Amino acid sequence: MQIAIVLYDHFTALDAVGPYETLGRLPGADTVFVAERTGPVRADTDNLALSADRTLADVPSPDVVVVPGGPGQRTQMDNPVLLDWLRAADATTTWTTSVCTGSLLLGAAGLLRGRRATSHWLALDHLGTLGAEPTGERVVTDGKYVTAAGVSAGIDMGLTLLGRIAGDERAQAVQLLIEYDPQPPYDAGSPQKAPAHLVAELRGAGRAR
Amino acid sequence: MQIAIVLYDHFTALDAVGPYETLGRLPGADTVFVAERTGPVRADTDNLALSADRTLADVPSPDVVVVPGGPGQRTQMDNPVLLDWLRAADATTTWTTSVCTGSLLLGAAGLLRGRRATSHWLALDHLGTLGAEPTGERVVTDGKYVTAAGVSAGIDMGLTLLGRIAGDERAQAVQLLIEYDPQPPYDAGSPQKAPAHLVAELRGAGRAR
Repeated sequence: MQIAIVLYDHFTALDAVGPYETLGRLPGADTVFVAERTGPVRADTDNLALSADRTLADVPSPDVVVVPGGPGQRTQMDNPVLLDWLRAADATTTWTTSVCTGSLLLGAAGLLRGRRATSHWLALDHLGTLGAEPTGERVVTDGKYVTAAGVSAGIDMGLTLLGRIAGDERAQAVQLLIEYDPQPPYDAGSPQKAPAHLVAELRGAGRAR
Repeated sequence: MQIAIVLYDHFTALDAVGPYETLGRLPGADTVFVAERTGPVRADTDNLALSADRTLADVPSPDVVVVPGGPGQRTQMDNPVLLDWLRAADATTTWTTSVCTGSLLLGAAGLLRGRRATSHWLALDHLGTLGAEPTGERVVTDGKYVTAAGVSAGIDMGLTLLGRIAGDERAQAVQLLIEYDPQPPYDAGSPQKAPAHLVAELRGAGRAR
C-alpha cells in the first residue's frame, strides 16, 4: 500500500507529520512525501523544510492521498498541476484524505461535491462554497473521503484511518508507541472552548490575510 | 529569543515538530533546526527528512534547546560533538528541554543529575541510570529543565513552555490556531490505559532493539 503525503510551499508542518507518524506506521506501507519538484519544501513559518522525495508525476496512483493545509493552500487553489494530479490520483485511491485547509484543495479539485467534510474552523464557510457539506466534527468520513479539522486533528485522523485499514489493535499499538495520551495545559483548542476574544482575534487575522 | 531544535539521524519527526508548531510560534522567536551538518536529516522511518538549516557550531548559545528522541538517540549517546554542544549551550540557556528519549541525551550530557524528569514510558528506567529522578508525568519542569514523555507529548510541552514564556493567552491562542482539541479514537495512549498485551508486545520489541 502506497501512501502519498503532498507538500507545497507554506504548508503547515504538523498537518503532514501527524498522519505520517500514525497512518504512516501501517505495517508494510510505503509512505512517500511528494511535491511538484523534489527537494526541500518550506513550511509556513519558513523555519522548517521537509523533503519531497518524489515528484507528483513519479507517484501517479497511490492507494492513499493525504493533503495537508496551511497558508500556502491559497496559492495552490488554482494550480492546475496539483489539482489535475489530485483528480487523477483520486480516480484509483482507496482513501483520499486531508487535514486542515487541505480539504479546500480537495474541494477545488471537485472531489467533495455533496460530501460531508471538515476543515480548519476558520475555513468551514469557504469549504461550503466548494460544494461540500461542512461539519464541525474533528474527523469526518464520507465514503472514501476522510477529512480532519485544523492542524493537530491529523493525528486523530491518522489513527482513525489506521484502525479502519489495519484494525483497532494496530491503531492502539501506534497510539501507545507515540504515547498519545493528550494532556493539553489549557482547554482552548476549539472556538467553542477558547476565550471569545481570542476567537475574534483569529477571525480578524484570517480576514486580513 | 533563539530556539534551537536539534536533529540527528533517525530522530522521531513528531518529537521535533510538536514543539516547533507550538513553542516555535512564540512571537519574535527565531526557531532554527540544527544538526552536526546542514541539509536533510532522515527521521526514524527513512520516509521523511527535515532540513537542518544551521550546524550545531553555528548556533552556540540558543536561549531554548529542544532535543527530540527516536531510535537514533542510541547512536548519539556517546557522540562527543552533540554532548559537548549540549553542555556548552546549556550553560547559557534559559530553558533546556527534551521530548521522548531526548531526555536520555540530556542525561548522558550530565544535565539531569538529581533532577525530576520524564521520557518515553519505555525509557524511564534507563533515564534513572543517568542520575535523573524519573516520573511518569507527561511534562516535567525542574528549574529550567522541561522534559516531555513520548513523541506526541512534545505538543503539550511546547504549549506549557509557551505559556510560561509568553503568558497563558498567547499559549491559548496557539492552541486554538492549531485546533488542539484532541479526540483520539482510542484510549490507549499510555501503558496504564492500553491493553496489557500491547504493552507487553512493545516492551518486548524495545528489549529486542
